Amino acid sequence: MKNTQIKLSARPIGEPKRSDWDISTVDVLTPNENEVLVKTIYISLDPAMRGWMNDAKSYIRPVQIGEVMRAGTVGVVVESKSDKFKPGDYVMANLGVQQYGISDAKYLQKVNTNLAPLQTYLSTLGMPGMTAYFGLLDVGKPQAGETVLVSGAAGAVGSVVGQVAKIKGCRVVGIAGGKDKCDYLINELGFDAAIDYKNENVKKAIKETCPNGIDVYFDNVGGDILNDALARINMKARIVICGAISQYNNTTPVKGPSNYLSLLVNRATMTGIVVFDYQDRYMEGAMQMGQWIAEGKLKSKEHIEQGIENFPEVLMQLFTGNKMGKLILQVNEL
Amino acid sequence: MKNTQIKLSARPIGEPKRSDWDISTVDVLTPNENEVLVKTIYISLDPAMRGWMNDAKSYIRPVQIGEVMRAGTVGVVVESKSDKFKPGDYVMANLGVQQYGISDAKYLQKVNTNLAPLQTYLSTLGMPGMTAYFGLLDVGKPQAGETVLVSGAAGAVGSVVGQVAKIKGCRVVGIAGGKDKCDYLINELGFDAAIDYKNENVKKAIKETCPNGIDVYFDNVGGDILNDALARINMKARIVICGAISQYNNTTPVKGPSNYLSLLVNRATMTGIVVFDYQDRYMEGAMQMGQWIAEGKLKSKEHIEQGIENFPEVLMQLFTGNKMGKLILQVNEL
Repeated sequence: MKNTQIKLSARPIGEPKRSDWDISTVDVLTPNENEVLVKTIYISLDPAMRGWMNDAKSYIRPVQIGEVMRAGTVGVVVESKSDKFKPGDYVMANLGVQQYGISDAKYLQKVNTNLAPLQTYLSTLGMPGMTAYFGLLDVGKPQAGETVLVSGAAGAVGSVVGQVAKIKGCRVVGIAGGKDKCDYLINELGFDAAIDYKNENVKKAIKETCPNGIDVYFDNVGGDILNDALARINMKARIVICGAISQYNNTTPVKGPSNYLSLLVNRATMTGIVVFDYQDRYMEGAMQMGQWIAEGKLKSKEHIEQGIENFPEVLMQLFTGNKMGKLILQVNEL
Repeated sequence: MKNTQIKLSARPIGEPKRSDWDISTVDVLTPNENEVLVKTIYISLDPAMRGWMNDAKSYIRPVQIGEVMRAGTVGVVVESKSDKFKPGDYVMANLGVQQYGISDAKYLQKVNTNLAPLQTYLSTLGMPGMTAYFGLLDVGKPQAGETVLVSGAAGAVGSVVGQVAKIKGCRVVGIAGGKDKCDYLINELGFDAAIDYKNENVKKAIKETCPNGIDVYFDNVGGDILNDALARINMKARIVICGAISQYNNTTPVKGPSNYLSLLVNRATMTGIVVFDYQDRYMEGAMQMGQWIAEGKLKSKEHIEQGIENFPEVLMQLFTGNKMGKLILQVNEL
């Protein structure tokens, strides 16, 4: 059996290019004691990956040059030297951008594909869903009747943020790129309003769609949109800083929010969130969201592209916005 | 009796100039029922005044063109039509930049000049002291052993922030302009270290003086210093946004903190504070700080300039930093 791998070959300047990656094929190895060989079916593509490619201090160490690119994965056990797993088991793992991987059994988590399709464990029941759930509820603390604004609203995190806020009784406005995504937010996910940042004046549109101001702003994008949101926050508003995808490929410094003094005027709070802090509570989040999915209150959408060799280009769909829902790369047949 | 008043005559662009002010002298009026005529002795000069001159939505309405400039004041009662005050009483008031003012009795607060000199009620026992006390303790929440960094550290707010943090058992580092101020912070106020932003590389100096990182950053200045502080915060750090004096005279947009994603990496919080929210607790703050002053643990320093006609130039000392401690203008003999 052969294993195609994608390694980081150069630190990107601005947008990652194909030449920043090394694609090679090696033999599949055999697991040692307590290890498990997993055939990866789906690989999670996340905006955070762009940060991991930089040689900078962050919440996680950078991917090294020559190393298989880090990624969350779901797959099926092929061979097991652990009594906790057997061939055919479906598992969540962090095996990176490759077709097969070997993991210590303690880093694997069994998933039940009868409860939700395998890919859901990379989206709503995986890291993006947990990020949305805990970021919104623990940091944003939305109250029924409040207005919640979310950017990157058609994405893996934003779509869950908006739906959970609706479940909690909030007025929900999403910001996304393009009419299709905006229609999807309103017609499929039940958002109260949507702003198409590619074709609308966001500042004006926030004023119109949030007539009572913003109580919670969940930010996935940074840049001008963060600034426009800051201009319309209410007293004691909570801003959740989850990401800043508009800034990740910058070759110039990140654009800081010039309206940050709105925090002072409104006694508001801006707080960063990293999902790993909630590891002890993933079970709680998964069970609640699983229940909402079963009840039809929460929809999970994945955009699945094919072929490990296409990873460099598929990754860029995160930044162009050319996808709907959670972006996933399928690298083996299910 | 004559009353010299300073009125706003134009909205300043950038630094306020003398031509933005109108100086005129009128007769002192007589109080009506429930009103009190107060001779102002000291007028508080505060960075926040610069914001009040702009025609912009903020936490308080802008001063109107032709209106006496808003200011906190302390003075002595001359004539009273209220049974709560009698001539000779010392009072805190908000009578603006003029030598005499008439106030409804309900807006006056008696002060005891035996417990602290009159000017202290504009500094440590007044708004700046309350801002420092509640901003640090309620929002910054410093714990013994943590590192607290404060900018504008030799000013009315910053000097109290640093001293209260020392009382609470923290390592305290202050940022101020010039060697005299830095020496004062260390030798007189007991700060552990001081950074002279006018003569040092602040980023490097923060690294050296905060070897364990920053747990609480109390920001009075904004701009590059806020950014440098963000680069060195610890996990779960608290940033208190109290002011941004470096940005108040900008004719270009406020400089947003390009390092704001450090909030995400460190799961940190940036929160704005306006002292008015703590009105119900001023008594608690004043009593605690009064006790610390009496015990010699907290020092209050005022820089007193003379003459109401000098207001336009004295105000600018806030921005040039040409003062030590709380800046006050004396407009009548005590």
